[in-house]
Amino acid sequence: MAEKTKSSSQPSKVLLIGFGGVGTMVSYTLEHLGRAEVTVVSVPETYESILAGYNIESLSYGNIERYVPTNVAQSPGEAVEKYGPFEYIVITTKNIPDVAPVVDMIKDCYSDDSTIVLIQNGIGIEIPIYREYPNATIMSGVTIIGTTLYDNTVKHVQTDTMRFGPYINYNLPREPQIAKCKKFCEMYSNKGNVTEYEEDVKFTRWRKLVYNACINTTCALADIDAGRADIYGGMETIIKPAMKEVIAVAKSEGVTLDDDVIDIMCRGEDGVYYPPSMLIDVRRKSYIEHINIIGNVVKYANRNGVPIPTLTVLNNLLKLVQLRTMEARGLFTLPEVRPLPEEHYKIEFNHRREEE
Amino acid sequence: MAEKTKSSSQPSKVLLIGFGGVGTMVSYTLEHLGRAEVTVVSVPETYESILAGYNIESLSYGNIERYVPTNVAQSPGEAVEKYGPFEYIVITTKNIPDVAPVVDMIKDCYSDDSTIVLIQNGIGIEIPIYREYPNATIMSGVTIIGTTLYDNTVKHVQTDTMRFGPYINYNLPREPQIAKCKKFCEMYSNKGNVTEYEEDVKFTRWRKLVYNACINTTCALADIDAGRADIYGGMETIIKPAMKEVIAVAKSEGVTLDDDVIDIMCRGEDGVYYPPSMLIDVRRKSYIEHINIIGNVVKYANRNGVPIPTLTVLNNLLKLVQLRTMEARGLFTLPEVRPLPEEHYKIEFNHRREEE
Repeated sequence: MAEKTKSSSQPSKVLLIGFGGVGTMVSYTLEHLGRAEVTVVSVPETYESILAGYNIESLSYGNIERYVPTNVAQSPGEAVEKYGPFEYIVITTKNIPDVAPVVDMIKDCYSDDSTIVLIQNGIGIEIPIYREYPNATIMSGVTIIGTTLYDNTVKHVQTDTMRFGPYINYNLPREPQIAKCKKFCEMYSNKGNVTEYEEDVKFTRWRKLVYNACINTTCALADIDAGRADIYGGMETIIKPAMKEVIAVAKSEGVTLDDDVIDIMCRGEDGVYYPPSMLIDVRRKSYIEHINIIGNVVKYANRNGVPIPTLTVLNNLLKLVQLRTMEARGLFTLPEVRPLPEEHYKIEFNHRREEE
Repeated sequence: MAEKTKSSSQPSKVLLIGFGGVGTMVSYTLEHLGRAEVTVVSVPETYESILAGYNIESLSYGNIERYVPTNVAQSPGEAVEKYGPFEYIVITTKNIPDVAPVVDMIKDCYSDDSTIVLIQNGIGIEIPIYREYPNATIMSGVTIIGTTLYDNTVKHVQTDTMRFGPYINYNLPREPQIAKCKKFCEMYSNKGNVTEYEEDVKFTRWRKLVYNACINTTCALADIDAGRADIYGGMETIIKPAMKEVIAVAKSEGVTLDDDVIDIMCRGEDGVYYPPSMLIDVRRKSYIEHINIIGNVVKYANRNGVPIPTLTVLNNLLKLVQLRTMEARGLFTLPEVRPLPEEHYKIEFNHRREEE
């Protein structure tokens, strides 16, 4: 009965997983005009500080003291039980399927009635979700937003330019999926950001990859920011050749990117020594998003027969970097004495990883 | 007159530049049977501790307390003045032409009468010396020796396998060059090592490069030891493809290496998690020997038209790593604000570098 009294002007119920720099800004964006009621799922380590509120210093929204989302739950299951059902489940975590697959994150809150909103980097990120939930409605968000969480303060320094699009599930009627996506888009859009509905979100994802697959990766491996990669000569020797390869792979996947995207991506941060996210991850000894940012590009290239000499080496080096981090963080332990070849030793992981 | 009284049984006068793990063992090897009288050139930072003596813990020579070479000088010029002339000038430093060219190191001690002995890694290292000193007699030493200097103790854990060969200067008669090389070889050889005279030292240098250009570089970029590079899968994905490229470049330079060298190099440290020297350099934030270990391979490949997709990317990444270290060590300073493209900014180095 209670359900029926809800009008369309009532705030939409949104579950948010991931409350870092991006997640906090997404939550605030949805809530501050009363359009949504956000329930955040927090890991135990951050629960108290989220409840106490984060300060936001935003280029677009000004300074907000102690922003606290409407609800904070300690697990997705608890969130559904206490505050569900949710119209949207928004994921703003890093996407690291080799360490923490998104399908695992949402298994206790998933419902066919909730639209899954993936605001994450990379390509191919929707596919594992369809594999697990054939009736899922999924939409995809690609943002360019300079926002970082330091302790309890979010610094937001670049206008949020967000493109949303439906990632059509052909098991379901098309129109309701588009309607859900457009509704979210309207909720999200305000004077402080640039929100676009884009039917072809695949194009947007590939376009952003021209940056991420090449600049993020090179900077992470050489341990330098993007400005230094330019001044040191790496734009010409590695990054631009890699970008040409990404454009060729995109084309083999039916996505045509203009060649001028290379210059746009290389010149986007002129005047600033910008450290890309993967560099920050490596410096923090955190896991990297290499699978969706470059691994899947390599996978599609190999499938489609596109030569990618530069991306291949970058990708294979990054796989080693990720394994180093996994070992350092205890996801596996090597024998004290290096095994001999005849032992045919294989790493035993003590966690579930998404299949490649 | 004094010169004439010298018989062939008198110790040979040797100037040694570089007194780390390798240099100390070379010095001890030459001196301990009375065959040579070594004068070591020391930088100010190590002068007192070399005079006080290094302890040697050697697999081959046992434990030696406080080994002090015959003479220690504070500069090559002082060495020549006080203890010269020298029959041999032996260089056992790292070879880093982009930071400290060997021709600069020897400019105050060089004489056409001294044979230059380069016990260093890489290829192409003799060429800058011929360019500067057209009448030089040069010989080349390639060693496989597990030796490291920790504080004042040298730990030597692997039998010194040393191959010497003349690097013939065609401006000079051939035989005396060969004789000088053979004499050094005899002085060096003893029961504690395996010393070979090898006319074709170029072959030996290229063979060792199959290891260094591929394993050293991959381990340095991924920040993992060679055992982990193997277990993590990097031998198959990066190192072996790179080794095949090195073999192809060697062939284009007239050096034929058997394919089984790949397996030999990959399996040489079975049972041990061995950290290659370039990895140690990166971990210590020291300069890397990238030019002679991989840069020259890339140069010859490009000159000879050999495709080297893997080595190209590794080399270009390592150039960035070296520039990062140079900046960190103050060899250049970038503007505080990243220059715009229209400023056509170029790095200004405050030291002399060898031309590439």
